Amino acid sequence: MTAATPQRRPIGVTAKVIAILEAFTGMPPGDGGLTLTEICRRAGLPLATGHRLVGELTAGGFLERSADGAYRIGLRLWRIATRTPVAAGLRELALPHMEDLYAATQENVQLAVLREGRALYIERLRGPRSVPIVTRVGAELPLHATGVGKVLLAFADPARQEEIIAAGLPAHTAHTITDPDRLRTELAEVRRQGYALTREEMTLGSCSVAAPVRDGRCRVIAAISLVARSGATDPRRLAPTVLTAARALSRDIATAWPDIP
Amino acid sequence: MTAATPQRRPIGVTAKVIAILEAFTGMPPGDGGLTLTEICRRAGLPLATGHRLVGELTAGGFLERSADGAYRIGLRLWRIATRTPVAAGLRELALPHMEDLYAATQENVQLAVLREGRALYIERLRGPRSVPIVTRVGAELPLHATGVGKVLLAFADPARQEEIIAAGLPAHTAHTITDPDRLRTELAEVRRQGYALTREEMTLGSCSVAAPVRDGRCRVIAAISLVARSGATDPRRLAPTVLTAARALSRDIATAWPDIP
Repeated sequence: MTAATPQRRPIGVTAKVIAILEAFTGMPPGDGGLTLTEICRRAGLPLATGHRLVGELTAGGFLERSADGAYRIGLRLWRIATRTPVAAGLRELALPHMEDLYAATQENVQLAVLREGRALYIERLRGPRSVPIVTRVGAELPLHATGVGKVLLAFADPARQEEIIAAGLPAHTAHTITDPDRLRTELAEVRRQGYALTREEMTLGSCSVAAPVRDGRCRVIAAISLVARSGATDPRRLAPTVLTAARALSRDIATAWPDIP
Repeated sequence: MTAATPQRRPIGVTAKVIAILEAFTGMPPGDGGLTLTEICRRAGLPLATGHRLVGELTAGGFLERSADGAYRIGLRLWRIATRTPVAAGLRELALPHMEDLYAATQENVQLAVLREGRALYIERLRGPRSVPIVTRVGAELPLHATGVGKVLLAFADPARQEEIIAAGLPAHTAHTITDPDRLRTELAEVRRQGYALTREEMTLGSCSVAAPVRDGRCRVIAAISLVARSGATDPRRLAPTVLTAARALSRDIATAWPDIP
């Protein structure tokens, strides 16, 4: 596992830098970092090239090397990333409403956007007395099996919807909707009622209710959800609460970004 | 404002990529992004080089170009940054305790770490009925004028402390401690009592109380604070609350990362 790996191909320095940094996604938080060899293997780079670029990224503060020799993503990169519009703007506007939802229900609260056919989780507040949840900030989950995902899919343009449905609907539990026609019916229902429900479709024991978050032009740009223990709570009873918070957040977005392109 | 700028000097591609991405820090959230010319000017790069590298970063998802032609930091970079230990690990562990503090006090709650002689804000929860605060996630504020900063400085090693004091103590209000000896006395008091107070030292109308967050080896790795309206609240009365949350978080950190190097 040194220089020669199947992924290796001639690419520019920028693409190599991106590949090195990408090697760190998918790692669990708080873990031991990556060695130089692991970075090169994941990035598909020869060790010599990797060594030089990792050194430059470390000198620039994009990577940090700890006493045990492992590399981790550096605070300088993190600081830049806080300027991502969705992280800085949307998250900043959403957090007070997410706190309201949490205070009112004591359940898990999540905020997600559509990214490359999946639901990307931007923020979450965990209810300590609620059901444990599989998401974390930065995680991506399938659209058809999650509440936020169903909302994002239901309000995506029809061509995009069909593309995502055509890419396959894998089962995550026995309750996941895997039949395209059943999912189409469900998405129509989401548009009709204005919110989405899931019942143990992603994780056994969890149910959720999700509502669309809109910009000043009424386009759905995100989804907000409550995830609760199934059985203990009927998710449908939480729908008005989530809808109220989603509408309040949408109003704040319209006020904050009146000139959104 | 095209090719020739005073900052330009021969640097490697990695350093140029870092300079381009760094151009986006310091921008207010939710704003209009940067044009190619602005990026090149801030990064000190010729337009041709900048054009090529910005194109490569956009192709790789590290930058995103909107309909109005402005560039913003992309979600792919943001996703990588969520793997920063301090963002993923520390923030994840801290959030429930920050929510507790917020629920108990309805005041602003902040979490910061020491970075390059300043307090870097990792997370904050805003109290909607509390005083407006100047920090945002990713912002850096001076150590000597903030509650979290005084805690981080008080528990930094003495050589580092003197270095930071020697770098100067600019006044942010008439109440900022600008005299080195008075600050040294204050830091000794912070170590003695185990928490820091500020009274309108960074912003008129705001006071704060901050407590140290420790790892499993009892080293101070972060600080947590409440920021309240001065006059309305005596920050000293909030100290036991902040200390309780800081200790609970420190215990969680020791449990989560028993083998921290």
